[in-house]
Amino acid sequence: MEAEKQREWGPKAWAHLSSVRNQSPLIQCITNFVSMDLTANTLLSAGASPAMLHSPNETPDFTPQVHALYINVGTLSDNWLPAMKLAAEIASKFKKPWVLDPVAAGASGFRLQACLDLISLKPTVIRGNASEIIALANASVGFTKGVDSSHDSTDAVEAAKSLANSSGAVVAVSGAVDFVTDGNRVVGARNGVPMMQKITATGCAVTALIAAFVAIDPLQALEATASALAVFGVAGEIGMEMARGPASLRMHLIDSLHGLDQTTVISTVKITTS
Amino acid sequence: MEAEKQREWGPKAWAHLSSVRNQSPLIQCITNFVSMDLTANTLLSAGASPAMLHSPNETPDFTPQVHALYINVGTLSDNWLPAMKLAAEIASKFKKPWVLDPVAAGASGFRLQACLDLISLKPTVIRGNASEIIALANASVGFTKGVDSSHDSTDAVEAAKSLANSSGAVVAVSGAVDFVTDGNRVVGARNGVPMMQKITATGCAVTALIAAFVAIDPLQALEATASALAVFGVAGEIGMEMARGPASLRMHLIDSLHGLDQTTVISTVKITTS
Amino acid sequence: MEAEKQREWGPKAWAHLSSVRNQSPLIQCITNFVSMDLTANTLLSAGASPAMLHSPNETPDFTPQVHALYINVGTLSDNWLPAMKLAAEIASKFKKPWVLDPVAAGASGFRLQACLDLISLKPTVIRGNASEIIALANASVGFTKGVDSSHDSTDAVEAAKSLANSSGAVVAVSGAVDFVTDGNRVVGARNGVPMMQKITATGCAVTALIAAFVAIDPLQALEATASALAVFGVAGEIGMEMARGPASLRMHLIDSLHGLDQTTVISTVKITTS
Repeated sequence: MEAEKQREWGPKAWAHLSSVRNQSPLIQCITNFVSMDLTANTLLSAGASPAMLHSPNETPDFTPQVHALYINVGTLSDNWLPAMKLAAEIASKFKKPWVLDPVAAGASGFRLQACLDLISLKPTVIRGNASEIIALANASVGFTKGVDSSHDSTDAVEAAKSLANSSGAVVAVSGAVDFVTDGNRVVGARNGVPMMQKITATGCAVTALIAAFVAIDPLQALEATASALAVFGVAGEIGMEMARGPASLRMHLIDSLHGLDQTTVISTVKITTS
Repeated sequence: MEAEKQREWGPKAWAHLSSVRNQSPLIQCITNFVSMDLTANTLLSAGASPAMLHSPNETPDFTPQVHALYINVGTLSDNWLPAMKLAAEIASKFKKPWVLDPVAAGASGFRLQACLDLISLKPTVIRGNASEIIALANASVGFTKGVDSSHDSTDAVEAAKSLANSSGAVVAVSGAVDFVTDGNRVVGARNGVPMMQKITATGCAVTALIAAFVAIDPLQALEATASALAVFGVAGEIGMEMARGPASLRMHLIDSLHGLDQTTVISTVKITTS
Repeated sequence: MEAEKQREWGPKAWAHLSSVRNQSPLIQCITNFVSMDLTANTLLSAGASPAMLHSPNETPDFTPQVHALYINVGTLSDNWLPAMKLAAEIASKFKKPWVLDPVAAGASGFRLQACLDLISLKPTVIRGNASEIIALANASVGFTKGVDSSHDSTDAVEAAKSLANSSGAVVAVSGAVDFVTDGNRVVGARNGVPMMQKITATGCAVTALIAAFVAIDPLQALEATASALAVFGVAGEIGMEMARGPASLRMHLIDSLHGLDQTTVISTVKITTS
């Protein structure tokens, strides 16, 4: 039964990636300064079209035209927060899927409140590490060590379900296994390699990829999210075969994401119903 | 006749690149967050000296000392726009060449107006993709799909001539062929590989390279622009021989730009009078 | 005698790097847009944990928890400067080491004053190129050519000693040889390759690495600084063996930093008492 389900996920992930390549969804990214380069290159390599526009002066013109919106609070400041909120509001109003990466959500009271405010604007998906998801589910500061998680993803599954139920979002927790839940179902995306955590912004980049996958399958956000996480992990696994360290892994990961073929995706994607 | 002209362009492009290496012009870059890394590395690899200073607090001291100014509106916001305008005004006042990259010019009314305002400050060169140049020539929103062009460069030649005539700038349109015009003459730079469009900020980077080339040959801005586009394209072609995807192409392109020799440039540059 | 001292530095540098790997110090980085990616990846590859948080809204919560603070004025603007000052004040108050990179200190009056104001907040270490250190020691504008030095590091040793004495900071001057002084002692770190200067933000990145090394040995800031400079240089030397140009050097440098082992560090580090 589980093996049968597993057999369905490979083709599903491939269908998602193929749709991104064919439709080249336009993804507006309001993201942190550290991750902009890797995020844009990840989206381009997957076949999507990134647009790093954040100004409130142009969001009203631009956001209604995009296929999905991606918001990441990494280098948050009080002059970017209104831009994020405005874009999220417009996305919700125009029924565009939008995805939140609550980087270091528990690092300060200001940041936690910003994330909670954004979550009240109804993201389609929230992806974070275990410490971030626990901080959000508990609405409490202090669970994070900078941007790195001090918890395993398995520790955060209940927090993720709780956050999914309270927010209405699909919630993904990254870790050795990436868990994705809508509050009821939980699936585990089991691809990737540990060294990806030694590359800055891989978490940010995969959240952008989730936005691209949700853009082309908005009615199945949980499935699209799991596919994006698995496909990125597969690219990391293939990249790792050629890598000598984190910087060459970064390069090979993007190259691999660009070159992934049907056979590889179907045979390598590991997603399980846990 | 055409073959003879072509024979002149290779040595000219090499002369331009050699001058950049020898003179190491100081290029002030007020550019978008996504492209800063690639832009600075492109300038360094070509032998120029990049300086990413943008604050209006220091532009009055600094801009008079630079050899050229590069302005790129990619991640435009209302608090960066005055800095761009001030730097452009100072560059014009001090007869420094300056180059504009009107990223996604048609994406919003705010952005279009910002670009038109900057163009009124007399850039030496404007480089964009076809959709951007058409949006500027028509002063109309809506021709762009994010930062990617939805037009071929050939579609934009008349728009480029019109924009060159109205602005007084040399105008370059990037695409499968890069066209450069002063409103009268039109030359085509025919180097490069399609995968360069799968790397974020290659357009931004080549516009910065144009600024470096124009810095050392300001009286022949059309020729310097065509040289820069061709040289960057040659680096891409050589890089492509070693690349396995967009991320390794990015690396090999910069390495190749750094290593280009006279024989390669002269034999590979393809610029034609169309 | 000198040879004996040299024999002590290799094990010391290895001990520093090992401690960073084992303790994974949390380093808050308030740095320029150009360097954020390379800086974060450098810290991760060395085993530290970078956090790019800059907002004054969260510094009061966050800075007391970090192990060191890194401030870099590369893309300075008047809305970032108060954030830098606040973080420096909190770091000083909570006895956290903090490190300053005064990029292009002499490029404008605004920038020079900003650097002098930051220095009055008692950085543990200041690292710059010769032109920057001379500009600071003389409190005068005009010694820099953009971000590149127009002086050799040897020219700046007296300026560095003077700045160290007036500020109370350890001062490092980068160049063909990197000099480190507390105003009294002077040591020279003699690793690295010239092509590292053709990669944007390597100076910024090594200053961040200094912050990580000082974080784990705050009472020996001079030694930790020399170790960080030498270790980064060793990574560059090893990377250079595989590099074909500046972009591949950047990749191999980070890979090498991640993979450095005890034998290599001890046998390759060159630090001398000059």
